[in-house]
Amino acid sequence: MLSEFSLIDRFFARRAAAGAPRADVPLGIGDDCALLAPRAGEMLAISTDMLVEGRHFFADVDPHALGHKALAVNLSDLAAMGARPQGFTLAFSLPQASEAWLEPFSNGLFELAERFDCPLIGGDTTGGPLNLCLTVFGSVPPQHALRRDAAQPGDDIWISGVLGDARAGLGVLRGEWQTNDADAALFRHAMERPEPRVALGLALRGIAHAALDLSDGLAGDLLHILERSQVGATVDVDAVPRSAALRQFPADIQRRCTLAGGDDYELCFTAPQAARAAVEAAGREAAVTVTRIGTITALQAVAGAPATAPAIAWRDATGTPLTLTLQGFDHFHAD
Amino acid sequence: MLSEFSLIDRFFARRAAAGAPRADVPLGIGDDCALLAPRAGEMLAISTDMLVEGRHFFADVDPHALGHKALAVNLSDLAAMGARPQGFTLAFSLPQASEAWLEPFSNGLFELAERFDCPLIGGDTTGGPLNLCLTVFGSVPPQHALRRDAAQPGDDIWISGVLGDARAGLGVLRGEWQTNDADAALFRHAMERPEPRVALGLALRGIAHAALDLSDGLAGDLLHILERSQVGATVDVDAVPRSAALRQFPADIQRRCTLAGGDDYELCFTAPQAARAAVEAAGREAAVTVTRIGTITALQAVAGAPATAPAIAWRDATGTPLTLTLQGFDHFHAD
Repeated sequence: MLSEFSLIDRFFARRAAAGAPRADVPLGIGDDCALLAPRAGEMLAISTDMLVEGRHFFADVDPHALGHKALAVNLSDLAAMGARPQGFTLAFSLPQASEAWLEPFSNGLFELAERFDCPLIGGDTTGGPLNLCLTVFGSVPPQHALRRDAAQPGDDIWISGVLGDARAGLGVLRGEWQTNDADAALFRHAMERPEPRVALGLALRGIAHAALDLSDGLAGDLLHILERSQVGATVDVDAVPRSAALRQFPADIQRRCTLAGGDDYELCFTAPQAARAAVEAAGREAAVTVTRIGTITALQAVAGAPATAPAIAWRDATGTPLTLTLQGFDHFHAD
Repeated sequence: MLSEFSLIDRFFARRAAAGAPRADVPLGIGDDCALLAPRAGEMLAISTDMLVEGRHFFADVDPHALGHKALAVNLSDLAAMGARPQGFTLAFSLPQASEAWLEPFSNGLFELAERFDCPLIGGDTTGGPLNLCLTVFGSVPPQHALRRDAAQPGDDIWISGVLGDARAGLGVLRGEWQTNDADAALFRHAMERPEPRVALGLALRGIAHAALDLSDGLAGDLLHILERSQVGATVDVDAVPRSAALRQFPADIQRRCTLAGGDDYELCFTAPQAARAAVEAAGREAAVTVTRIGTITALQAVAGAPATAPAIAWRDATGTPLTLTLQGFDHFHAD
């Protein structure tokens, strides 16, 4: 049996070092620090996420899917900033170093890393309850960073892809609702293998104003943009994009999944109305659908909130106001 | 009682945002990513460490000391690279958000962060078994990075401060040996509040060749320099600096603590013989003692190892060869 050091070396260090040397990562794993060379004139975008067993994933999750998702949710943060991935660090604790777990986990991780040209540049491993902490680094010109505080009244609100499938998958696993095998597989795929919208984030540089990625559910996450930008929003709940599979469910479950489901990892962004054609073109360039769901407004009186508090005015397709009581994905998560 | 979000905000986000805005951290906590502006022409040095309860610290550790140590061990990695601290991210899971724990923990963390001008720029918090993951960022001119692969035959081998006190403290706590209260307090301080040698790392730019920080014990850590540089070493075990308190112990315990103790967070570095006066001056500038303990050699035959394997030839003060069987701090740690 291999020692723990050999296993780590075999599944991580060697693969991290594999491939052509990169000018922008002159020193990777094996020293006190990794060295990363920033692009001239660009900023470094940095995000860190911690994933804990029993809270962010089930103990029996497919390790390959877990490796994928651990990096995907971090790349999604870079996408939401319009940043180009440059590398990541991985620190994790696990109860025992088992080949049967490390091999598929590292494969899921590196397959995504290689697809996004985002090498592992450093890390730490230790024994302990299963816990994954990734920190990702991307590069973005300062004037193109898609910050949450940049939304302006009159902006359209856009969503990439479809929302709610991951929450629908969680509901199927939990037995909250049932569906056919094909749709269950689609939901599960959405839950376990989110696709970070890096290409869209890059294509939206200079076009979008504010952006974030949807991890806790649209209702809660959009509020972050509103609060940081000190604006309001009107959203047509019937315009929120959803899959054909999710449309088979009753309307209240559809709304719960699309508006408060969480774990979507799609981009929510705002852009001026004059940029509609440019946004559509960015979606085509990134091969992902983009859907307009509402409008950014000046701070206004909304039922139940004082005039100065950013809030979302929900409407249906006929323009009728809706009162929704929605809560974001509750996992004691602050980011 | 405050909600969990309020607690996090109160103890971390507000304090992270406090102080004057910095040109090199244009965007901190509160967006998808932090933005960090690299210094023109410099590289970014990055290190990540994960600390787990029961493995890196005891469950009943003083939270203030834990906050200090969690950041200190990461700053120590920057010091070993000759990098100037620029910021850090903190991701942690904890079983419950308790004010009684978060307040002293955050105080310990921020007191050190402020002393080293190293702001918190991003983070993640979640429920789960206690686990801390910090990632630090520093800045270093590429030609001044103190890499592990830069040792050259003929270099002196130097150590900052004294070694072994942290391991002595662990032994006292474990009941492996006893000492008086004053010395026990000194040992415990060494174990819980290591001082990162950032100023020394900066002062050694352009003087030292290779460097690393001692986390797993001199015997194991020095080997990392030898392996990366493909050189050997001769070390005088009697020259290894130790405290007056540790000198009260029997010689075998002194050696065990100084050579294989771990948790020292002192710098071990190599420098040409012609730079002795410059190294001494760097030590004075950084207000830390520096001690010469040996010499880097060309790869050579050492008892028990083939000629091509980097190894340490141990000597005592009289020059007599010693055969030591030492193991590094065993915590399934790869870095």
